[in-house]
Amino acid sequence: MSEKKILLSEKEIPTHWYNVMKDMPNPLKPPINPGTGKPAGPEDFSAIFPQALIAQEMSGDRWVEIPDEVRELYKIWRPTPMFRAYQLEKALGTPAHIYYKYEGVSPAGSHKLNTAIPQAYYNKKEGIKRLATETGAGQWGSSLSMACKFFDLECAVYMVKVSYNQKPYRRILMNSFGAEVIPSPSDRTESGRAVLAQNPDSPGSLGVAISEAVEDAAKRGDTNYALGSVLNHVILHQTVIGQEALLQMEKVGEYPDVIFGSCGGGSNFAGLAFPFLHQNLTAGKKTRLVAVEPEACPTLTRGKFAYDFGDVAQLTPIMMMYTLGHDFMPPGIHAGGLRYHGDSPLVSQLYHDGLIEAEACGQTDVFKAALQFAQTEGIIPAPESAHAVSSAINEALRAKESGEKRVILFNLSGHGHFDMSAYESYLSGNLQDIQYDEDALKQSLERLPQVT
Amino acid sequence: MSEKKILLSEKEIPTHWYNVMKDMPNPLKPPINPGTGKPAGPEDFSAIFPQALIAQEMSGDRWVEIPDEVRELYKIWRPTPMFRAYQLEKALGTPAHIYYKYEGVSPAGSHKLNTAIPQAYYNKKEGIKRLATETGAGQWGSSLSMACKFFDLECAVYMVKVSYNQKPYRRILMNSFGAEVIPSPSDRTESGRAVLAQNPDSPGSLGVAISEAVEDAAKRGDTNYALGSVLNHVILHQTVIGQEALLQMEKVGEYPDVIFGSCGGGSNFAGLAFPFLHQNLTAGKKTRLVAVEPEACPTLTRGKFAYDFGDVAQLTPIMMMYTLGHDFMPPGIHAGGLRYHGDSPLVSQLYHDGLIEAEACGQTDVFKAALQFAQTEGIIPAPESAHAVSSAINEALRAKESGEKRVILFNLSGHGHFDMSAYESYLSGNLQDIQYDEDALKQSLERLPQVT
Repeated sequence: MSEKKILLSEKEIPTHWYNVMKDMPNPLKPPINPGTGKPAGPEDFSAIFPQALIAQEMSGDRWVEIPDEVRELYKIWRPTPMFRAYQLEKALGTPAHIYYKYEGVSPAGSHKLNTAIPQAYYNKKEGIKRLATETGAGQWGSSLSMACKFFDLECAVYMVKVSYNQKPYRRILMNSFGAEVIPSPSDRTESGRAVLAQNPDSPGSLGVAISEAVEDAAKRGDTNYALGSVLNHVILHQTVIGQEALLQMEKVGEYPDVIFGSCGGGSNFAGLAFPFLHQNLTAGKKTRLVAVEPEACPTLTRGKFAYDFGDVAQLTPIMMMYTLGHDFMPPGIHAGGLRYHGDSPLVSQLYHDGLIEAEACGQTDVFKAALQFAQTEGIIPAPESAHAVSSAINEALRAKESGEKRVILFNLSGHGHFDMSAYESYLSGNLQDIQYDEDALKQSLERLPQVT
Repeated sequence: MSEKKILLSEKEIPTHWYNVMKDMPNPLKPPINPGTGKPAGPEDFSAIFPQALIAQEMSGDRWVEIPDEVRELYKIWRPTPMFRAYQLEKALGTPAHIYYKYEGVSPAGSHKLNTAIPQAYYNKKEGIKRLATETGAGQWGSSLSMACKFFDLECAVYMVKVSYNQKPYRRILMNSFGAEVIPSPSDRTESGRAVLAQNPDSPGSLGVAISEAVEDAAKRGDTNYALGSVLNHVILHQTVIGQEALLQMEKVGEYPDVIFGSCGGGSNFAGLAFPFLHQNLTAGKKTRLVAVEPEACPTLTRGKFAYDFGDVAQLTPIMMMYTLGHDFMPPGIHAGGLRYHGDSPLVSQLYHDGLIEAEACGQTDVFKAALQFAQTEGIIPAPESAHAVSSAINEALRAKESGEKRVILFNLSGHGHFDMSAYESYLSGNLQDIQYDEDALKQSLERLPQVT
């Protein structure tokens, strides 16, 4: 057996982020200011984002330099290892070679720290004292809390209430880094109060929590907003994953036939896939790039490609993306980080153009795969990350059936150490596939904003 | 700034374990069979241990070869990284260079997997079907559960009841690897029933849980017992840590003036320290080697160097070691893995001979240090590991006061992802220093067995 881990040195941490916008055959449709109905300019974002991130959001450069201060902090855990899943391959009896890029070695436990650090850095540099954000399962909130502590910023995290109650240890982790954690919907904001007035027992959603955090940031001059996925600059920061993975595949002399990444807002999938898409678009490579989403919140596979709000309270600019409707309330699955009605405009446009693929997984299949992975490779995947695990295992089994060798790569974006209640639920037989409400989906798609 | 992480390649995983017995100026006193009062031979251990481990327990070889199958599995996470604690140094304003060897990258979350894997391997090889063990905070139980799953062995874990209740996610983690987890004291064994008869609300202790696991193993022909610390073969397996650390210090061109390791049964401390002790004894080096224990269970600093049982029910051979008395019940501190009345005979003898040092830390100081570490370096330490963090920080502050450069190395033996309730307790101001009962200690020391 050869090497299990493919490691890089700190000198091989990428020096630039990769901006896919430059290589897209069809450009993004512009975001729309909901007040004027006109394309949103930098000024529409300046109340809640620093100039540097607004510039990245709209950048036409293919490569964006990573500041030295950010690269220094990346050294805490980057480059992340790539593993060859020898034990899993053996258990599956597959001729496929399975590789995974493991982002769970980040001290915050997931890939989210890749963008939390630059976001905190740029905000600090522009004099901001405090960041407000939302979190679902807590991976993003944990990462931003840590990044804020590193840069001596205050941090307020609106955490989707169902996850807040399911995952008390996540809250304590964020508290340990000095963050304030507020269950959402809360009575701290108008958006939260409006939801509570309608349903005092609302489990919350990412769409509601985003409204609360945006409102918090917009109201206070010392506070900006930070988002953990969806936006172009977030996707940009995550491309360190795929760039390292390209180098690691090169070191073992293989190249992936297919890549899987779990997809909620899109940054997990895109972070690994876009540098390989760059190779597809510019170097004649033909890697299949597959975004894996939950059946309970099937934005790409069942949603509509349309202009929609990013949040329930309609505070954000209107974006062209796949969406289930901004007030669609996904069922309370354990992969809370994937419970978002929309998707990254970049991922959406590329999916629309047929350059990437998407598939949806049921919750029980996901946990079955997660456990098989844990019992062979040792690592307990986060429920979100386990969507990619599930698809990778299915692909490896198809390769076994057809007797073809195949090189599979997936993003194991985080560990599940704070998600053990979900595993308990699965092990005790209480975990079920939860279907979304077809009628509710139909109705929420009828409430999309009109953009002319 | 230069490299943050000092990494080794898989080829640099040690090929042999280091056996300190060969280099000790004073040999170990033999273990005693409590029935005969005579030195215990291999046959006294064969009911519960495989021959290969009994041979290692008594080995006179300085170097013991690591089987290929074990080294293959070590590749999942070894070599572990060594970190330079730049951010912590900066926060402390110390001229000291602080390094830590991070064993928490093990998929089980701590150094315990270093010995769990060879123990499972040797038992499997000798036809055993099932292993029984005890666990305190759960680090050892998690590791043995995982190792048993890798080798297709059944696993029964008697978990100290106070930890079982404090740390539900630990139990789920072990269940995820297929282990059965039983809160101890239980009604499954005579030892457990005896404790429950005296005190139905007993919080349990490692000494009781060991009795239960040993009894379970002794009663069943298909079952052996596995211990996570104390014994010579366990210490042996952990020396991969220090051997890698020697190589890593060499790569950065430094050498530690002082090493800290948390000490309960001793394997955490010894695993890092003994290969450096080898250098002290054979190559003229003079590194201070400091075992750090909790004030609430101060075996080395307040115990007696005497023959004693390893467990409450007096089922184990009598060993010469520092002890607080086999029926001493340490208070329920959060560092459950350090709540053991005795200590490794190897560590004890070396401490007695003045070749290593020891110090004790209070629980609140430990958590204060843990939080400072987490907020600068990002990693949440396990409460056990945080004892070494606390001593390392104190040493760095002394270096600051005296203005001396000093190279400090400590073993960050595991992460605290499953110990967040302890952090919550600290953050909410509910965590206190708990003193052991002086009278109870005096009495338990009067009940040591008589060995002539």
